[in-house]
Amino acid sequence: MNTSLFSKLAGAIFLFVFCHTCSMGPKTPIKVTLVGSGNWGSAISLIIGKNVQKYKDMFDHQIRMWVYEEIINGMKLTEVINTQHENIKYLPGKKLPPNVVAIPDLLTACKDSDILIFVIPHQFVENVCIQLKGHLKEGVLVVSLIKGFMIQKKKGGIRLVTEEIRDLLDVDTAVLMGANLAPEVANEDFCEATIGCKDQKDRWSILQKLFDSDNFKIALTEDANTVELCGGLKNIVACAAGFADGLGYGSNTKSAIIRLGLMEITIFVELFYHGSSIRTFFESCGVADLIATCSAGRNRKICEAFVKTGKSIKELEQEMLNGQSAQGPLTAEEVYLMLKKHNMVSRFPLFSAVHQICQGHISPDHLVVHLRESQNSN
Amino acid sequence: MNTSLFSKLAGAIFLFVFCHTCSMGPKTPIKVTLVGSGNWGSAISLIIGKNVQKYKDMFDHQIRMWVYEEIINGMKLTEVINTQHENIKYLPGKKLPPNVVAIPDLLTACKDSDILIFVIPHQFVENVCIQLKGHLKEGVLVVSLIKGFMIQKKKGGIRLVTEEIRDLLDVDTAVLMGANLAPEVANEDFCEATIGCKDQKDRWSILQKLFDSDNFKIALTEDANTVELCGGLKNIVACAAGFADGLGYGSNTKSAIIRLGLMEITIFVELFYHGSSIRTFFESCGVADLIATCSAGRNRKICEAFVKTGKSIKELEQEMLNGQSAQGPLTAEEVYLMLKKHNMVSRFPLFSAVHQICQGHISPDHLVVHLRESQNSN
Repeated sequence: MNTSLFSKLAGAIFLFVFCHTCSMGPKTPIKVTLVGSGNWGSAISLIIGKNVQKYKDMFDHQIRMWVYEEIINGMKLTEVINTQHENIKYLPGKKLPPNVVAIPDLLTACKDSDILIFVIPHQFVENVCIQLKGHLKEGVLVVSLIKGFMIQKKKGGIRLVTEEIRDLLDVDTAVLMGANLAPEVANEDFCEATIGCKDQKDRWSILQKLFDSDNFKIALTEDANTVELCGGLKNIVACAAGFADGLGYGSNTKSAIIRLGLMEITIFVELFYHGSSIRTFFESCGVADLIATCSAGRNRKICEAFVKTGKSIKELEQEMLNGQSAQGPLTAEEVYLMLKKHNMVSRFPLFSAVHQICQGHISPDHLVVHLRESQNSN
Repeated sequence: MNTSLFSKLAGAIFLFVFCHTCSMGPKTPIKVTLVGSGNWGSAISLIIGKNVQKYKDMFDHQIRMWVYEEIINGMKLTEVINTQHENIKYLPGKKLPPNVVAIPDLLTACKDSDILIFVIPHQFVENVCIQLKGHLKEGVLVVSLIKGFMIQKKKGGIRLVTEEIRDLLDVDTAVLMGANLAPEVANEDFCEATIGCKDQKDRWSILQKLFDSDNFKIALTEDANTVELCGGLKNIVACAAGFADGLGYGSNTKSAIIRLGLMEITIFVELFYHGSSIRTFFESCGVADLIATCSAGRNRKICEAFVKTGKSIKELEQEMLNGQSAQGPLTAEEVYLMLKKHNMVSRFPLFSAVHQICQGHISPDHLVVHLRESQNSN
């Protein structure tokens, strides 16, 4: 049996098993809902909107997109999307596939869906899950595209978004992370992404078909925690890269900083989420996302400005992000508090220095001193 | 016993064993020679010149530097270096430590040395080795800082510089590689490097003391082949990064290309030099050097110009490198011929595409098509 035939057969078996676990007959098409309609949600709708048309025997032809209703130029955003097929607020200038349908009511958007793609700011996750509780189809899979962490309210420290979703909704989860700056994805520039989906290999074929395209190449792994942790922790490293740029450091120093950041990510993952595979860091969610974020992300940019202007992170968020929080400094703080509690600050000199610099406790040019001292003491 | 005391004791034992294997009494200072005096050789002389003074009980206070004699402004380069303590041709504006002594005769420079640091263009290695044959102290260690490969004359394909050195001189070897653009090292910007030194752990302490400084942090590994292979192969990836820049690709695509390049490096190492450790790619010689080279190296630059100007690599080498060969296109060719011979071209789509683009066989914007097709066929 040749490989291609084998993979087709395997795909068919996967599909059957998936449909079975979803309590659907083999011919019931899979319904997909996008929970979120920001820049990244709109960009990904371009891909999945086309894919469900391509694989029409497998998927329902409509992608429902939950849109938090806003009035733009006197019109409802959902109406604009459904008539002009463009998210004029969050992804202006790009036509969305006409089968992407904006729905302002969360429960209506998610009703009977087999796959929910969560692509909302992490601070809205809890509220959305509370609303959805008890209203989801049995066997639904939630795929999180959210790069960030929740805070453990009782114990302190970080908590994965998917852990929160699983706890609140009692559903299976997967994550999609990678070097995916949304405007470039919307522009159909070639890139890659990693889907982490644990213990649900029967669903891999479906996820592949839903997300993979010629210019958005998907790799799948069971190591979902590592995929998700990379997506959040890399923002701390991007802050350090931004400080390096602000201080005018050259390529040797900046790449050393990125490498040390990568090392701390691997150590963090291994310490707090045992059983990761080192190979996962070689996927798009690992090195590629780190490289892209450290060269072009907004955490890098804001931290470069932090050094050059002397303004606080808060001031710069007001000026540069319309008051939105940059993820990096926030994640650095959450991680720092967690490390302090576990008496592990000294094992993460870069993570710790980023937090202390963002807080104004140490000067940015202390970053290298900090890294050097901790290396010398090892 | 605390760690610090233990490591000091271990260091002392290593030193004793090393001196013993070098047939020296424990108090005979270790003599070090730099074989080469270009930009990188001169930059590294700043570090080791200071270190041998710092550890004067361990090392001979003088670093002998073999300088290929040239006449600069009517003066011999060796005389300029020994009087003005500056390599005005290859590292102008930087004072070398006065204990770095330029010597025009190769054998005089290397006589009785315990450590030879090879930092010459790889095409001179064979000739230098032939001259040195039979004139070296027993037990000498050659540390190669040469990033590039030799060509296997009979079998075709690449061959490690250290393999060539070991074959020609029957000596032990080590390598030092990392994200080390010479001008930044000379500027004492913080960076890191990796030393690969196999089966000679008794020498690690000495190598650490010779090369490590506050702004040049050394990590040691036994996985010497991987260290050396990373240093050479990354130049192929830098070419691909340069094409991406020339084509105006964004961060998603460029980081995907760098990641795919990194993957091919790991596969190449595993196929042709079994027994590598995946951890080595996380060292400075791995990801850090790759990131630095793909953002600031000359292979990147020349390949960006290749796309933008439409000139041939040869023309651009004349214009931009004073006729010197860029390592990337050369290495890509050598590796391509090797892959072809082993019928493995399809397993290395990025490496192969770089060679074919440099040769003008395919257009640069075919790079992504090439990568995509090979992913689809996997």
